[in-house]
Amino acid sequence: MIVVMYPNTTKEQIANVEKKLVELGFKTHPIYGEVKTVIGAVGDKRLLNTQAITSMPGVESLVPIMKPFKLASRELKDSPTIVEVGNYKIGEDAIAVIAGPCAIEDEESYISVAFKVKEAGARFLRGGAFKPRTSPYSFHGLEEDGLKILAAAREATGLKIVTEAVDPRDVELVSSHTDIIQIGARNMQNFKLLQEAGMTGKPILLKRGLAATIEEWLMAAEYILSEGNPNVILCERGIRTYETATRNTVDISAIPVVKELSHLPIIVDPSHAAGSWKYVPAISKGAIAAGADGLLIEVHPDPACALCDGNQSLKPSKFTKLMQELEPVARAVGRKLQP
Amino acid sequence: MIVVMYPNTTKEQIANVEKKLVELGFKTHPIYGEVKTVIGAVGDKRLLNTQAITSMPGVESLVPIMKPFKLASRELKDSPTIVEVGNYKIGEDAIAVIAGPCAIEDEESYISVAFKVKEAGARFLRGGAFKPRTSPYSFHGLEEDGLKILAAAREATGLKIVTEAVDPRDVELVSSHTDIIQIGARNMQNFKLLQEAGMTGKPILLKRGLAATIEEWLMAAEYILSEGNPNVILCERGIRTYETATRNTVDISAIPVVKELSHLPIIVDPSHAAGSWKYVPAISKGAIAAGADGLLIEVHPDPACALCDGNQSLKPSKFTKLMQELEPVARAVGRKLQP
Amino acid sequence: MIVVMYPNTTKEQIANVEKKLVELGFKTHPIYGEVKTVIGAVGDKRLLNTQAITSMPGVESLVPIMKPFKLASRELKDSPTIVEVGNYKIGEDAIAVIAGPCAIEDEESYISVAFKVKEAGARFLRGGAFKPRTSPYSFHGLEEDGLKILAAAREATGLKIVTEAVDPRDVELVSSHTDIIQIGARNMQNFKLLQEAGMTGKPILLKRGLAATIEEWLMAAEYILSEGNPNVILCERGIRTYETATRNTVDISAIPVVKELSHLPIIVDPSHAAGSWKYVPAISKGAIAAGADGLLIEVHPDPACALCDGNQSLKPSKFTKLMQELEPVARAVGRKLQP
Amino acid sequence: MIVVMYPNTTKEQIANVEKKLVELGFKTHPIYGEVKTVIGAVGDKRLLNTQAITSMPGVESLVPIMKPFKLASRELKDSPTIVEVGNYKIGEDAIAVIAGPCAIEDEESYISVAFKVKEAGARFLRGGAFKPRTSPYSFHGLEEDGLKILAAAREATGLKIVTEAVDPRDVELVSSHTDIIQIGARNMQNFKLLQEAGMTGKPILLKRGLAATIEEWLMAAEYILSEGNPNVILCERGIRTYETATRNTVDISAIPVVKELSHLPIIVDPSHAAGSWKYVPAISKGAIAAGADGLLIEVHPDPACALCDGNQSLKPSKFTKLMQELEPVARAVGRKLQP
Repeated sequence: MIVVMYPNTTKEQIANVEKKLVELGFKTHPIYGEVKTVIGAVGDKRLLNTQAITSMPGVESLVPIMKPFKLASRELKDSPTIVEVGNYKIGEDAIAVIAGPCAIEDEESYISVAFKVKEAGARFLRGGAFKPRTSPYSFHGLEEDGLKILAAAREATGLKIVTEAVDPRDVELVSSHTDIIQIGARNMQNFKLLQEAGMTGKPILLKRGLAATIEEWLMAAEYILSEGNPNVILCERGIRTYETATRNTVDISAIPVVKELSHLPIIVDPSHAAGSWKYVPAISKGAIAAGADGLLIEVHPDPACALCDGNQSLKPSKFTKLMQELEPVARAVGRKLQP
Repeated sequence: MIVVMYPNTTKEQIANVEKKLVELGFKTHPIYGEVKTVIGAVGDKRLLNTQAITSMPGVESLVPIMKPFKLASRELKDSPTIVEVGNYKIGEDAIAVIAGPCAIEDEESYISVAFKVKEAGARFLRGGAFKPRTSPYSFHGLEEDGLKILAAAREATGLKIVTEAVDPRDVELVSSHTDIIQIGARNMQNFKLLQEAGMTGKPILLKRGLAATIEEWLMAAEYILSEGNPNVILCERGIRTYETATRNTVDISAIPVVKELSHLPIIVDPSHAAGSWKYVPAISKGAIAAGADGLLIEVHPDPACALCDGNQSLKPSKFTKLMQELEPVARAVGRKLQP
Repeated sequence: MIVVMYPNTTKEQIANVEKKLVELGFKTHPIYGEVKTVIGAVGDKRLLNTQAITSMPGVESLVPIMKPFKLASRELKDSPTIVEVGNYKIGEDAIAVIAGPCAIEDEESYISVAFKVKEAGARFLRGGAFKPRTSPYSFHGLEEDGLKILAAAREATGLKIVTEAVDPRDVELVSSHTDIIQIGARNMQNFKLLQEAGMTGKPILLKRGLAATIEEWLMAAEYILSEGNPNVILCERGIRTYETATRNTVDISAIPVVKELSHLPIIVDPSHAAGSWKYVPAISKGAIAAGADGLLIEVHPDPACALCDGNQSLKPSKFTKLMQELEPVARAVGRKLQP
Repeated sequence: MIVVMYPNTTKEQIANVEKKLVELGFKTHPIYGEVKTVIGAVGDKRLLNTQAITSMPGVESLVPIMKPFKLASRELKDSPTIVEVGNYKIGEDAIAVIAGPCAIEDEESYISVAFKVKEAGARFLRGGAFKPRTSPYSFHGLEEDGLKILAAAREATGLKIVTEAVDPRDVELVSSHTDIIQIGARNMQNFKLLQEAGMTGKPILLKRGLAATIEEWLMAAEYILSEGNPNVILCERGIRTYETATRNTVDISAIPVVKELSHLPIIVDPSHAAGSWKYVPAISKGAIAAGADGLLIEVHPDPACALCDGNQSLKPSKFTKLMQELEPVARAVGRKLQP
């Protein structure tokens, strides 16, 4: 890292900073500029409390050179991580499509839509049993009953299941019913939940926080990885910006940036990003062309009756059409949909 | 609420939307414009799943007229909420100053700084026993040992204690040691934690989420209030913007906006907002002049040795000076510091 | 539009607002809710000064129902606008690629790179003669000499020319040398410049402002259209967000949103959006798959020697490869590159 | 500056970068870390095209150590700039209040409100003759007739005049009628306008752009200063964020940040920041307590009839009350209102 000193810093202040850096295990290399002095500090100290330096007299700022994440970085592991979920893999050439309703409402309609998304080509089924909702007065999911419906749908269709955990106390229960545990955007920095999810060893779908930087997102992945669980799938779902035409702004550049910085697979959730089903096809195609490893798409048989997020759900017929349109886009970038 | 229909919507589509609204318990008032039709829907339905309407054919958008929060709103309760913490009150004319280190590091130094902030005029002592940190490799607090040090500091100084809970499983333990439970910015939408905190009945200091709107923040307060706990103190701590000169951008307008929309008291955390102790005095004075009911300020005896957020901590001597400067500002707006 | 009144508004206040609305030419439809009254106001009054209403006693807010733009909207003209530039068209099935260096540095190298982008398949050549730069100390372009080089490059290659105007006083001069006048992001709300550009009748490439909403962008287009010039091409170039991994965040959803709201063609500038050439191929492919009508790509023969924005420029060889990769993506969405 | 190289960069790549830096006039100091190499480059090269370095093979990023602005910086001039406008000064202990309507509508009402703001204690009168408006269909000001009304109001009241220039071609005309030329937020990076304004030598009120960083704002000031005009007054008017409760988010921290980085005076415009007159008093008091050198406040005799921004205008009676409340706040921070 580089320590930048204020102009007119005294020699003594510079010496004190150097001394402190040496105490902390760094080798120091001061560079005396015309106006400011900077001190190069060599040593890979991710555990360092850098604030100890920044608050010393004469220190203007501190510029980290190394990324703060390690296990999630390309620097440590250059080959792409492929997450195995039964016979299916995420992060390979074949693109994974996860589809289904936002919330599980009842068994019959859920299994019916499960068959429809399977027929359209999805290989993963989503559905929320525990729903984090902005309002205490909204529907919060069927909880354990929802998990049982998920398991029934898996048995009936053979699809792999993705569902969210929202409370560290429920992670074990959720884990026992699902194939992939989803960590939602609002919980991306719920570190206790990340640790519990990490300890299960199950594949974790980690959504990007509402206003998380890519670096913070990879640090959240690092929490899971540092529990010994390498099975993390990142999910871009739009970030908060000033634009109100869409619910969130999908950050498509996050795909190549994540691919450069990390070995983890990345998928895109166009439904939550856009907040309207009308924009889902365009964003889905854009995401695949830009290199995403998969998609997470809301599909509901009757969006007007959905208890949650109906406006962003595709009807099964529109989803089937989208899957047909995605196939040539995947091929155009040398990939395919999971067979 | 108002349902806006697309141009060229058919009469049948409009009739279907009206029928649905009536089923949901609304009275409808269609208004036929030159280009678009809108339907006024009368009925206070905070529990409504509005998505059921927005996804109907012909519906362009839905404009809510009522705020989604109820217990937190001025519409329900016009007189300001005053939160009592022992002999001290937050939300009254007297301004509450909460001060202390970010994290508790050891008993001796903690009690020493506690006496210093007391002497400077603070009546509340902060200190983190459980610390949510962006990196899994950072210091995460002394946990239960930290809570015991807090209790010891309270006994020694008579100051009231504020500390954070980060896991629903720890809320009861934290509650048994503290006077005010803090919910941090990263957990503002950790709804399970909000519910557990609500159930304790203890005063809750609810920080605004990193990128939360004021409406979402008041909805998070609603979670606590709806558990029957009226003792919520809101804390503005800066929001995430594109500006990088400060760690966050303190939203000073949130003070009058919250005062207009809600009866809850609001305080400001200038330390996390700015990310640098240099800006803390200016923001603190600005916050008091703009009508804040209190401040949450980081003070550390030796910022260069702090295990967390040292750069934003004031030294006790600078904090003492700031308290002296705050007194006339409080008086200028017809208030005073807590005696 | 809908006028929302505060709770506890008096009958007299409501009557006054109604009276004012009638004076302004509206028909009014009050709806009396349980808590609040709202007044529907029918009449397409884009010229209205709505502030006259919002500041009346008892008025809480005003909800517009109609979009503020008219000439730019699908409501007025449903068929897509196709901008003709000589034999080439923008907005048709064939996708337009505009490529070239950020700034024109000298004639020889500029014409050399012009031939290279032509060979790779671009049909439009970009190059800045007038450069708006954040610093007064940066290179600001060759000005009129640059325009002459542009004209020479057009003659040599047959490519159509795109260059920026930054001063209303220079619009006529720029117009006389170029095929398309570019209005840069920083000037999206330089209304005098928009009017001058509109008056030329020339095709105008209108970049989205750094932090402009889609609605403001379409309002800027409206300035040009209202001068009687229908030849506007919108260009998404990334918006400002808190994320720093890329220079700006390209808003890919803007493509389907613009297509829904407006008949104008939209292209994407991946180079300025990303700020790094490494991300240009992924964003370019994503943009085409999401429905963009074209791309604006920086290409420089020797990025390390570029006087401006070298870091985001592709070398000609990388640009050639990208063009080859774009062809199948265009075909996958039923389009092609301009032959 | 510091050049950060990628891991696994070859010695040759490092040598090439060093060579290039030396060519550009730098002295180089490479530091070989465990994973990455960084090269310190000593030399104050604000004119440097840094892109020439960032696009070289092996270069990951470039970290500037010096601020890009020079004339605007404290590094060059440590004493505060005091802008003289006739007998009045901005940047001294005495706080300057500029008040008046957004747009000049007619002479009689304008002069009437001018007397009212004078009586309330303002010493500067604002009023727009040229108005940049988002919509081509809105009122754009009385133009030259407005300037004449301004001059008449000055003669009648003795107040100093502040009005906006929006077109480089009008700067001379505006300058001949006004005491301070305002550059609006939308024109903060209209560099031709900045240069023209700089050349007049008149005091320039430079509003912060809608989404400008503090650094970009000081760079815009640098444009004016580099024309030999030292009379720049910065004006914080709120930045664009995701929050919609206020029109913009006033960045109160910008006050201490600007005071640290620059010698230029800074005032705050609470009216445009908030977008509602209700929040203007709180923000005004907060700004003064935080160290602002002045305020720019919209006052209109009949906000419901204002042709522009009525909703954010205070009535003269409310403005008078605010001025009375500001006096003790100014005194609390050791200042006073201009007598």
